[in-house]
Amino acid sequence: MYWQEEARCGSDSTGWARAGWLHTRHGSVPTPTFMPVGTVGTVKGITTDALRSTGAGIILGNTYHLMLRPTAERVHRLGGLHRMMDWPGPILTDSGGFQVMSLGPLRQMDEDGVTFRSHIDGSKHRLTAESSTDIQFKLDATITMAFDECPALPATKETLETSMERSMRWAARSREAFKARPGYGQFGIVQGGTEEDLRKRSVKALRNIGFEGYAIGGLAVGEGQELMFSTLDFTIPELPADQPRYLMGVGTPDDLLGAVMRGCDMFDCVMPSRAGRTARAYTERGTMNMRNARFADDTRPISPDDDSPLAGRYSRAYIHHLFRANEMLGPMLLTWHNLAYYQRLMRQIRSAIIDGTLPALAQKLRADWSKGDWTEEEFPKPQFTL
Amino acid sequence: MYWQEEARCGSDSTGWARAGWLHTRHGSVPTPTFMPVGTVGTVKGITTDALRSTGAGIILGNTYHLMLRPTAERVHRLGGLHRMMDWPGPILTDSGGFQVMSLGPLRQMDEDGVTFRSHIDGSKHRLTAESSTDIQFKLDATITMAFDECPALPATKETLETSMERSMRWAARSREAFKARPGYGQFGIVQGGTEEDLRKRSVKALRNIGFEGYAIGGLAVGEGQELMFSTLDFTIPELPADQPRYLMGVGTPDDLLGAVMRGCDMFDCVMPSRAGRTARAYTERGTMNMRNARFADDTRPISPDDDSPLAGRYSRAYIHHLFRANEMLGPMLLTWHNLAYYQRLMRQIRSAIIDGTLPALAQKLRADWSKGDWTEEEFPKPQFTL
Repeated sequence: MYWQEEARCGSDSTGWARAGWLHTRHGSVPTPTFMPVGTVGTVKGITTDALRSTGAGIILGNTYHLMLRPTAERVHRLGGLHRMMDWPGPILTDSGGFQVMSLGPLRQMDEDGVTFRSHIDGSKHRLTAESSTDIQFKLDATITMAFDECPALPATKETLETSMERSMRWAARSREAFKARPGYGQFGIVQGGTEEDLRKRSVKALRNIGFEGYAIGGLAVGEGQELMFSTLDFTIPELPADQPRYLMGVGTPDDLLGAVMRGCDMFDCVMPSRAGRTARAYTERGTMNMRNARFADDTRPISPDDDSPLAGRYSRAYIHHLFRANEMLGPMLLTWHNLAYYQRLMRQIRSAIIDGTLPALAQKLRADWSKGDWTEEEFPKPQFTL
Repeated sequence: MYWQEEARCGSDSTGWARAGWLHTRHGSVPTPTFMPVGTVGTVKGITTDALRSTGAGIILGNTYHLMLRPTAERVHRLGGLHRMMDWPGPILTDSGGFQVMSLGPLRQMDEDGVTFRSHIDGSKHRLTAESSTDIQFKLDATITMAFDECPALPATKETLETSMERSMRWAARSREAFKARPGYGQFGIVQGGTEEDLRKRSVKALRNIGFEGYAIGGLAVGEGQELMFSTLDFTIPELPADQPRYLMGVGTPDDLLGAVMRGCDMFDCVMPSRAGRTARAYTERGTMNMRNARFADDTRPISPDDDSPLAGRYSRAYIHHLFRANEMLGPMLLTWHNLAYYQRLMRQIRSAIIDGTLPALAQKLRADWSKGDWTEEEFPKPQFTL
């Protein structure tokens, strides 16, 4: 597995944005790329056909959920995640570390790893650098993530330091446990909260170990966009220029834009798919709650962009109706719409990097997001006669 | 709207089965045909694209549900049901009569119609022959059903007679209220329970009024397959040979086969889609509960038939996993599978009618349904290596 640069922005404000290709055993993916989250072997509410139609190139699976159900051994017997869920493209799996940390009182950590109880049936399990890496091998992850600890923010510097140092020891053990195979890779995860020196020490430790790519962990956990961006500002330049950078768990369209401009290549977030299930639509004009009564007779599609999978087919009124009637098709169509919007956004950003027009695009995107819904003058309502 | 015969079975045991075409304003549909139920402007859990891929030609909408939400007026403003739900093909709507009757204490009937309270918000509504027909017009139904009363079985002959006679008066009023348009049609509904003389009188009354097709109502309400079939045996010969016959609310694959052999052309039933949402798979070997633990490691597809939309893509183990994990994709995929099975079955039956091989097919289908799941010798489990 390797990453290849195709273009890079040269101007001051966008000096770090870059377009490239991630070449893997399961296909090549243009970067920057957004990875839809397929927690337990399915991106919720969407078929892999529909997912492919959005242009998604790589998706994410969650080690914590999959190890509990259907279990890594079973996924292995079923031919791996790709075959099991009919997604022949690349799959990145997380290490389970972050999700296990979120279990709170259900987990206990020690130097060697984490013991926890399943949220499903209370059964006891253990994750270590070695077992996490082995599970991801059994899942047939194209990209394996190193096992790490992710402390909640805000945290004292001491906590962050202890935690980061442990994560670096775990990273070394994860690398040791990883079975190198052509077209497969493993990413280390930079920790250290929002502390510049800790982040730099973390990068150094990971580069000493050596990975096929580097993830920025421990962000998007409540610190706010400004702190997240400033952390990227001092972390990204430390990372190797010829390897992919993955900002974990991010984010809103505006987060993605800002992070790409700071040099990040890969992202994952449940936001667009979760929003799709709760009636929130992402558009070029910000988000809209499709349950809102103002959509009940709105004959327009959600967005005038013909590239949406709903364009020319489904009105806002219909989507509104589906959610009001609690029909599954509402979440299904809106998940599809939102994931398509995210992919479209990444394609736009990528093209602008290649064309050298990213600053102009960024300005336009941000201005549009803040405008709110199209007026009827901008985007007239079709009238139907029968 | 009209129906055209393509072939008819000549042998004794299948003398009434026939293949034909239903030509409508919204396209032509081969019969016999099974109509998936799209209660409230969506066939639950499936996109219209996937529905089309199964070969479904005509679908059903429910007047009762649609009049309450999003309302007939709103559907009309949105360009009719076809445009609203992106189903350009033919749509048959029921009259609301049957569903309103099922409301029990929430409804009150008089000679003119039914007053009832909405199951959604308790609001008061009224349906009459005229308003039901008008609602179906506003929905842009390709086929409008006459407003009728459907008594629960068993019922005294007196109840059945009074009810049937009222339904016939309502049928005449429905016909009066129907706006004839090229390619659109209206069906009368034969009532009379399982009483031969009542059924015959009902057919006579409807033929005197004159419709584009005739439905058999009041069956599949608990009377059992034998009584249903014997009722068809004495009812169908009374109906015009050159018009379509629709058996309402039926049924299992075996019901469909038996009813086609008795001369029915059209069917609707929630069974395959509802079963899909509750983990029950329809196959050539009967039904299977996909939640059953024996599927947890079953690498085979649900059925060896390559015509299933899941064939070559999803294992039984994966479908099992999705239902165990309460993932939306489970109901989505299984609804698709079941509706595809029903359409495949109708195609097989239709081909056999044309080829004159229906008795042999019927024997084979019934034998297979009773065999139960394929053995591993008949249908081996693929082994995967990673």
